Amino acid sequence: MRYELYYWSGIQGRGEFVRLALEDAGADYVDVAREEGDDAILRYLDGVHEGPLPFAPPFLKAGRLLIAQTANILEYLGCKLSLAPESESARLYANQLQLTIADLVAEVHDSHHPIASSLYYEDQREEALRRAGDLRTQRLPKFLDHFEQVLERGGGHALRRHSYVDLSLFQLVSGLSYAFPRAMQRLHPDLPLLHALHASVAKRPRIAAYLASSRRVPFNESGIFRHYPELDDPA
Amino acid sequence: MRYELYYWSGIQGRGEFVRLALEDAGADYVDVAREEGDDAILRYLDGVHEGPLPFAPPFLKAGRLLIAQTANILEYLGCKLSLAPESESARLYANQLQLTIADLVAEVHDSHHPIASSLYYEDQREEALRRAGDLRTQRLPKFLDHFEQVLERGGGHALRRHSYVDLSLFQLVSGLSYAFPRAMQRLHPDLPLLHALHASVAKRPRIAAYLASSRRVPFNESGIFRHYPELDDPA
Repeated sequence: MRYELYYWSGIQGRGEFVRLALEDAGADYVDVAREEGDDAILRYLDGVHEGPLPFAPPFLKAGRLLIAQTANILEYLGCKLSLAPESESARLYANQLQLTIADLVAEVHDSHHPIASSLYYEDQREEALRRAGDLRTQRLPKFLDHFEQVLERGGGHALRRHSYVDLSLFQLVSGLSYAFPRAMQRLHPDLPLLHALHASVAKRPRIAAYLASSRRVPFNESGIFRHYPELDDPA
Repeated sequence: MRYELYYWSGIQGRGEFVRLALEDAGADYVDVAREEGDDAILRYLDGVHEGPLPFAPPFLKAGRLLIAQTANILEYLGCKLSLAPESESARLYANQLQLTIADLVAEVHDSHHPIASSLYYEDQREEALRRAGDLRTQRLPKFLDHFEQVLERGGGHALRRHSYVDLSLFQLVSGLSYAFPRAMQRLHPDLPLLHALHASVAKRPRIAAYLASSRRVPFNESGIFRHYPELDDPA
């Protein structure tokens, strides 16, 4: 099966959670918009095809299936790529954790775009300063302490074994460390398991090769995790 | 199976999407916090139990399972309560649509709380006026047009037959009509299928009985869908 991933070509964004699963599993896939341009995505958003209608990328074509929403794609791939546990209870938990990661990712996005996605950062900078302050002092500790507890229960993994959730936690820590280096440094002592997981995922051979390749789009200020120093902890 | 739903007792919130599925199916369930108070929820958030750790309500206990995240609960219940289609492709689509509904629900929440959930509305009213303007003029039409197209493809249903997604679309239209009556009136002519679905779900016997009962918490200004006239279209 050759998977087709559709995601904006210039950013990691939400597509990166899917890319990491495909890369870690050594799956055969094509990153369509990076080959053909972002218009390949727009055709599906315009609904010129039959069947399921995606609201936004990322979406994945897998044979006749078209699957949108990051957590939904990962639930599907987790099963196909042996990146999810087998029991019903553990699969439900995997999906739950992925959705909680998605909630934090949305909050991170809104920390630089608290008013409107369609406006420039500069046009909502004052509001962003306020919202990012709340994110750094209230929401980040709350979410990350939760994930630390989850890892404690799972013996260092989200789900007692390697899974797509571990890969997503890796991406979360990577993105947050890029966007908020000072805040993440402050929180570091309380998150030993999360940082240990981050380090061990980075060393997985296929992930290490991927991160060193040109397939990994560098973090940048068009993506979800943006480094605006004024939104981080004061120096 | 007697299901136990855990959700804040004073609001519809995200728990309402689960309640509607349980009610429509005539499932045996107890709304725990409405019987025992919200402390029943906090015990699980504090993690005094073993196993899966919820980040926030709603969560559902189903025998030995503890399942959090609204879309995850509905994916589970959809299967158990015959509120989801049977094919893999349609189930993936159901989950995708539910997650897109969840995205809009989060944006609606942030329209009155664009800076911080922990602050009062009054302390972020100026920012809310700006964000709600974007929601009403940009985001609502984009999301609702999408759902209208989905219903067009599904012959008046999200998934060609009754499902938990139809129930969630009913709740979405109900909540938006409460929060933004003038904006929804403006958009009404473009959304015939969504409003027809809303009317037909409201007439389902168990839903009609539920809506008329004291089990349905009225919309209020502590929930997600809040009616602040200044956030709606100008009169």
